[in-house]
Amino acid sequence: MTYPIGADNPMRAQFSARAGYQGLHVGWQLQAGVGTITLRRPERKNPLSFDSYAELRDLFHGLRFATDVKVVVLAGAGGNFCSGGDVHEIIGPLTRMAMPELLAFTRMTGELVKCMRACPQPIVGAIDGVCAGAGAMLALACDLRYGTEAARTAFLFTRVGLAGADMGACALLPRVIGQGRASELLYTGRAMTAAEGLAWGFFNALHAPDALLSEAQAMARELAAGPSFAHGMTKTMLAQEWSMGIDQAIEAEAQAQAICMQTEDFRRAYEAFAAKRKPVFQGD
Amino acid sequence: MTYPIGADNPMRAQFSARAGYQGLHVGWQLQAGVGTITLRRPERKNPLSFDSYAELRDLFHGLRFATDVKVVVLAGAGGNFCSGGDVHEIIGPLTRMAMPELLAFTRMTGELVKCMRACPQPIVGAIDGVCAGAGAMLALACDLRYGTEAARTAFLFTRVGLAGADMGACALLPRVIGQGRASELLYTGRAMTAAEGLAWGFFNALHAPDALLSEAQAMARELAAGPSFAHGMTKTMLAQEWSMGIDQAIEAEAQAQAICMQTEDFRRAYEAFAAKRKPVFQGD
Amino acid sequence: MTYPIGADNPMRAQFSARAGYQGLHVGWQLQAGVGTITLRRPERKNPLSFDSYAELRDLFHGLRFATDVKVVVLAGAGGNFCSGGDVHEIIGPLTRMAMPELLAFTRMTGELVKCMRACPQPIVGAIDGVCAGAGAMLALACDLRYGTEAARTAFLFTRVGLAGADMGACALLPRVIGQGRASELLYTGRAMTAAEGLAWGFFNALHAPDALLSEAQAMARELAAGPSFAHGMTKTMLAQEWSMGIDQAIEAEAQAQAICMQTEDFRRAYEAFAAKRKPVFQGD
Repeated sequence: MTYPIGADNPMRAQFSARAGYQGLHVGWQLQAGVGTITLRRPERKNPLSFDSYAELRDLFHGLRFATDVKVVVLAGAGGNFCSGGDVHEIIGPLTRMAMPELLAFTRMTGELVKCMRACPQPIVGAIDGVCAGAGAMLALACDLRYGTEAARTAFLFTRVGLAGADMGACALLPRVIGQGRASELLYTGRAMTAAEGLAWGFFNALHAPDALLSEAQAMARELAAGPSFAHGMTKTMLAQEWSMGIDQAIEAEAQAQAICMQTEDFRRAYEAFAAKRKPVFQGD
Repeated sequence: MTYPIGADNPMRAQFSARAGYQGLHVGWQLQAGVGTITLRRPERKNPLSFDSYAELRDLFHGLRFATDVKVVVLAGAGGNFCSGGDVHEIIGPLTRMAMPELLAFTRMTGELVKCMRACPQPIVGAIDGVCAGAGAMLALACDLRYGTEAARTAFLFTRVGLAGADMGACALLPRVIGQGRASELLYTGRAMTAAEGLAWGFFNALHAPDALLSEAQAMARELAAGPSFAHGMTKTMLAQEWSMGIDQAIEAEAQAQAICMQTEDFRRAYEAFAAKRKPVFQGD
Repeated sequence: MTYPIGADNPMRAQFSARAGYQGLHVGWQLQAGVGTITLRRPERKNPLSFDSYAELRDLFHGLRFATDVKVVVLAGAGGNFCSGGDVHEIIGPLTRMAMPELLAFTRMTGELVKCMRACPQPIVGAIDGVCAGAGAMLALACDLRYGTEAARTAFLFTRVGLAGADMGACALLPRVIGQGRASELLYTGRAMTAAEGLAWGFFNALHAPDALLSEAQAMARELAAGPSFAHGMTKTMLAQEWSMGIDQAIEAEAQAQAICMQTEDFRRAYEAFAAKRKPVFQGD
């Protein structure tokens, strides 16, 4: 049995068919392979609700098999990224739930991070203003993060009586900024300033607020013009090798890279080099 | 069978009963949930001996089930943190021991670090002056570290002919300051300056020598006023997820956080928020 | 059966017998326990070819059992470190290979990194000018790295249509400079500047171009004068503990350090200290 190549291939979901898609809670825009997700509800600094968690989870899950979306930008509307789980809509109900429901909730929020790590598209976060709680985790789950001087990133779970262990924070944050700094942020819940975020490697760069989204999208377009199959493999391996031994990781990369060496993009790059022109990658 | 809640519950060791406890080698002070451990023997820069290793190990082991100690401060007397294993009292005898005794020693020192990581209390290190050898490992085993400009931290095992692999250094140091910097310190044994320690994420902040202990204790009180059950879970998960895959870590946090959502402190935080007052956490 | 100690012991390869050894593609110089490997082909910025990968792999493999080489310096000739896999000699042929050959190639390049991590000698990289692709991986596989202001380190696999997952990059780079910065370099292929490399912990220090090799060799001599058996154990444990849990790492170090406590160098260090003189280590 052979599968058709393209939009009607069941292994390759197409988001272009959903070009007009707008979520109830998040905006979606697809342009030249770059999908921009915007957290919307600026009057409350873009909080998360049960519905918006689920919507984001499903959106990122859908991206897993999409081949027409090459890179994703994740941003917030109105000068803030995300204020995290809404106190009235989320925290109140949680205090009245029994364990099975609580676990269903923490698994749903965790699944959102898993889906962000599992989709092949690099995710570029554009982080301005408030970036708090689960919002800080969404930022942390991105591959690249651009901020502004006004970005204040707080893993503030402790402030509501909870552990810093939320959506993978205790695993992800130490790898990005180091164990000692992560410990401070997770135990105290204090906001990391933008300057700290840059110095510590949380942000890849800071931009002016007006330029933030366009800079993030420019980086996304640059990546989208790259070899996207190989980018997806880079992303897969950054996650796969997280807890491997060194020798196992090297063998895993030997296999992963051998696969990439049979792509057309690898051949295109060589031929472009030989002909002294810039390669045009197509992602296959 | 039901267990009583409080001091006579066998699962909940109480240190308040030991308020007057003073070790032979280390001082102990308990105030408002903050236990301060002071390495004492300032005339020799607070070296470690066989006895003091064992005493510290047993003290941290005892804290594992204590509910009246919320946070621990670890400090040295007299302007230095700790000069490490004493040359005459420790290194001399070690050169004459057979393998089973040597392994008993290295396991005892390692057990001290295990006990520091296993007790639920965040440990705040107050590090001034000399911080060397096993002393540097005690500092590294803390959750948060505050230093002074005079702090000189040296993993100097190589200087006595030993490996940098001591008490977990090759696992812990790279996670705090990065693999390349850790390699340099462990191969050369040179002292990391306070400025390097701050820039590299070993120290969370530097304070003036007179203010160091009080600043460390102030942070400890701040943490002790927080949700200590949840802090203990943060600490557990920071250790548990060390070598997990990303997806496993996220599931582990889903379970851990669901547990924390059934604490009274979570409810207290929500009710305080709803009533627009500051929550008063009680650690249960 | 007992083995002779020294050059005719089959467990202890001796490189001194190869003092006059010069590879076809890399230079080798052994002086006072410090072996200097020079990548040679300066007119092309020291690219790698199929042959030179294999030669380097075999050279590092041979070092695994060598006791007369204490430390290795890895440098490039003519003001550049290494330009990576040669486009004409490597990339062209790869585009025409079938999978078994491709995997043989990626396993060979991976084996080179495995051999660099598996030999007991600390490896000091001296990195000037171009340090690109597989060359950047050779630098990353060193234990210590010294650079110059002109060093430009690019993990540029993506530029030739490949994944950043090459020779262990997705495992090693995040541990050295953090996950966020590593992601940017691996997805974009852009060059890390020397200043970034120093700030991020990739370089241990920067030196003037003329002084680079002599500074790297001075550090290598300093390490070679140290307890080399213990250095080898440090290196082994830095790799072994990579994916262990904390408690397992601490037990592993208890065993490793107990072994080192039975070396003559440990006794020498103690005796020198007692006699108030500097220890003379001999590596056994």
